[in-house]
Amino acid sequence: MRVLPDAMLTSLRALLGDRFSTAEAVREQHAKGESWHTPGLPDAVCFVESTDEVAAIVRLCDQYDVPLVPFGAGSCIEGQTVALKGGLSIDMMRMNAVLEVNEGDLDCRVQPGITRKQLNQHLRDTGLFFPVDPGADASIGGMCATRASGTNAVRYGTMRENVLGLTVVTPQGEVIKTGTRARKSAAGYDLTRLYVGSEGTLGIITEVTLRLYGMPEAMSAAVVNFPSLDGAVQSVIETIQMGVPVARIELLDAYFMRLINAYSKTDYPERDTLFLEFHGSESAVTDQVHTFRDIAGSHGGGDFQWAEREEDRNRLWDARHTAYYAALAQYPGKQGLTTDVCVPISRLADSISAIQCEMQNSLLNSPVLGHVGDGNFHLIFCVDTDVPEEVAEARRLNAFLVNLALEMDGTCTGEHGIGNGKLDYLRLEHGDGAVEVMKTIKRALDPKNLFNPGKTVDC
Amino acid sequence: MRVLPDAMLTSLRALLGDRFSTAEAVREQHAKGESWHTPGLPDAVCFVESTDEVAAIVRLCDQYDVPLVPFGAGSCIEGQTVALKGGLSIDMMRMNAVLEVNEGDLDCRVQPGITRKQLNQHLRDTGLFFPVDPGADASIGGMCATRASGTNAVRYGTMRENVLGLTVVTPQGEVIKTGTRARKSAAGYDLTRLYVGSEGTLGIITEVTLRLYGMPEAMSAAVVNFPSLDGAVQSVIETIQMGVPVARIELLDAYFMRLINAYSKTDYPERDTLFLEFHGSESAVTDQVHTFRDIAGSHGGGDFQWAEREEDRNRLWDARHTAYYAALAQYPGKQGLTTDVCVPISRLADSISAIQCEMQNSLLNSPVLGHVGDGNFHLIFCVDTDVPEEVAEARRLNAFLVNLALEMDGTCTGEHGIGNGKLDYLRLEHGDGAVEVMKTIKRALDPKNLFNPGKTVDC
Repeated sequence: MRVLPDAMLTSLRALLGDRFSTAEAVREQHAKGESWHTPGLPDAVCFVESTDEVAAIVRLCDQYDVPLVPFGAGSCIEGQTVALKGGLSIDMMRMNAVLEVNEGDLDCRVQPGITRKQLNQHLRDTGLFFPVDPGADASIGGMCATRASGTNAVRYGTMRENVLGLTVVTPQGEVIKTGTRARKSAAGYDLTRLYVGSEGTLGIITEVTLRLYGMPEAMSAAVVNFPSLDGAVQSVIETIQMGVPVARIELLDAYFMRLINAYSKTDYPERDTLFLEFHGSESAVTDQVHTFRDIAGSHGGGDFQWAEREEDRNRLWDARHTAYYAALAQYPGKQGLTTDVCVPISRLADSISAIQCEMQNSLLNSPVLGHVGDGNFHLIFCVDTDVPEEVAEARRLNAFLVNLALEMDGTCTGEHGIGNGKLDYLRLEHGDGAVEVMKTIKRALDPKNLFNPGKTVDC
Repeated sequence: MRVLPDAMLTSLRALLGDRFSTAEAVREQHAKGESWHTPGLPDAVCFVESTDEVAAIVRLCDQYDVPLVPFGAGSCIEGQTVALKGGLSIDMMRMNAVLEVNEGDLDCRVQPGITRKQLNQHLRDTGLFFPVDPGADASIGGMCATRASGTNAVRYGTMRENVLGLTVVTPQGEVIKTGTRARKSAAGYDLTRLYVGSEGTLGIITEVTLRLYGMPEAMSAAVVNFPSLDGAVQSVIETIQMGVPVARIELLDAYFMRLINAYSKTDYPERDTLFLEFHGSESAVTDQVHTFRDIAGSHGGGDFQWAEREEDRNRLWDARHTAYYAALAQYPGKQGLTTDVCVPISRLADSISAIQCEMQNSLLNSPVLGHVGDGNFHLIFCVDTDVPEEVAEARRLNAFLVNLALEMDGTCTGEHGIGNGKLDYLRLEHGDGAVEVMKTIKRALDPKNLFNPGKTVDC
């Protein structure tokens, strides 16, 4: 453990009182995210309550050359919150206020520590909602930092499309604002999009202006199963190619359906399955449903279960959102290692069947699920991290899949980010020249490399 | 005129042959954009045909410290193509090939010199289209560089949302790729969005991967007029707030309708008018039309003219797209000075009525038009640029409007960009801290300030 300078400790205690902690248990809670990566303990944790406090802490870190890591709900998957070089973990979760909701403009401004579920709970009576929904109940700030998405992205976009502006504390301790409440702007470099996805390496997000959406007049959710994975995937491809504005279209293979039934006490047929949702006017939803029924039917899809009431739809999506935990639950004590490739939709069937084929002779096996309308799918390897062969095999399969996706002009990460888990793949995907541009930006904005060092780009 | 070094001239002639020109007439063609700004002549013009040629020219500029300005269709409005410091103008318009169309994935890769109309002509038999449509038949590269949008942005987004990836030549002459064909990615800093809107100040775009859309099953266009501008604007606000997925919703005031009738030989009622288009399945379009009819009717809108056949819709939108030229045609010899604010939709009526009120005692008067579904609208002042009072008054009114928009948490430019025309407003909108971050990025990526110097941020 780094010894933080006494003068810095004194300043932090004066600033934060009992919201500053060096207790072992607190530091351990802030040493990792949700997926398995080697933990890294911060030297201390700051529980902040305002932008000014963040700025003051950043100036102290700058003065004493101490690294820092912003920390949200801790649900990141690529080690973004691991304090690789110690220093301070800045816990943002007390900054969870909704600062304004502009119903007429379909936008709101929030603090970064609010979670997506808390935000939607707050919006409940306005007739508005915020659509981006990673599996976990992540914080909005963390979702910005990792450029998160989820099941609704096929219709509503990711954090990239849904953040209008940010308040950011720079590595120099300056507080800046990016963006306005205008829906579009051509005013200067797109700093909003630069900070979204930068994983705390360029600045700390302390306020977020988000797009909101009116609750559709009609919403209908469906579960439909197929005789083969290929039939399910082909149905997805045709639905997207025909431009059906489906709100959600999620694949879970037969193996996953078995795990979900066991975990969520549901009784879905244990076959390759799509979970869908349609949003729009009554007749637009009816239209979409008919079109999709025809497509699915032509690929053997049937046995539709429909849910239109909110509680029924929620039950269905809750089952879907527990997939990660359902996978882990089959092997108590094992850790989850997930993959996150995203490919052009026409290559979806090829990429899934190639990895399934590769797993046939592997000591690991994984169910398949994904936001397949975007071409994004996940495997979850449950690994005993004390068994080097298992860790190595999970990494080999991930590498196989990433290489496959890149050959298909896809990406190594659709929504989980680079963190410190995918640094090598960043270069493989973008090439040396583009990574050098990223490093140049990082060095220019954070010359001391104190902001979440070792993540996104390794300077 | 700067004297380009002899050795550089020799190299450029060897590289480009008769595609390198120092002729006065050619330089004058490359000294300005479409709206009025003080022209700035380049010392020479390069007509490039490949990424490798661009990279070679950039390396020569770096070697001899010569500035450069990328040049597309020349339809920019904020002086982006003016060679403020001489040097080379790099004309991209011979790089106008469609490199690939992936129909199943709804994307394509093009060279930057293709115009939006050429691209859609090429796509004609595929059932796909590219929606972003600034008034002019701009080049795709220029539209990327200025983060352009147009009438369809309310439904399909701007260039920010529709560029999947770029090939860029950096100020060091490196060729890099940003993005893949995946619909979403969380892999590293969002360089695509950084270059989109950077106006040639950070790199030269030499290839563009674009999202495409399937032609909707049904399309219906309408023109409807109102007894007052307020009725038209309130109809827009309610339509957006209700979440009607309108594809286009454009305002033209009575003054503009008179100009369009005169210019396009149409006979629209000369009243405050909305031009609309609805896209979707047959029943979805019917739904949207009914909803909008009800909204418009409650604000006195009537006298609907409908167009469903492609040629009828095209005629309607051609009339709309000539608005800028129609405004200029009333004063032969005068120049156009346009405004481009974008405000939260709830403030649209307030901002339009405030500027109209301000114009009542002005020596200038302008019609009002705009992409009002986004909160974006334009005035076009026709100015005798030899009369200082007229220029000063146009600038005063623009300043009044920008200040108004910023107070409303809007932007000084929805789609035209900063160029060198709005540098002061960049700072006013974003604040010193954010502009300093932009400058830090510019200095880091282009340390010699050779890429379109004096635009976007003034280093």
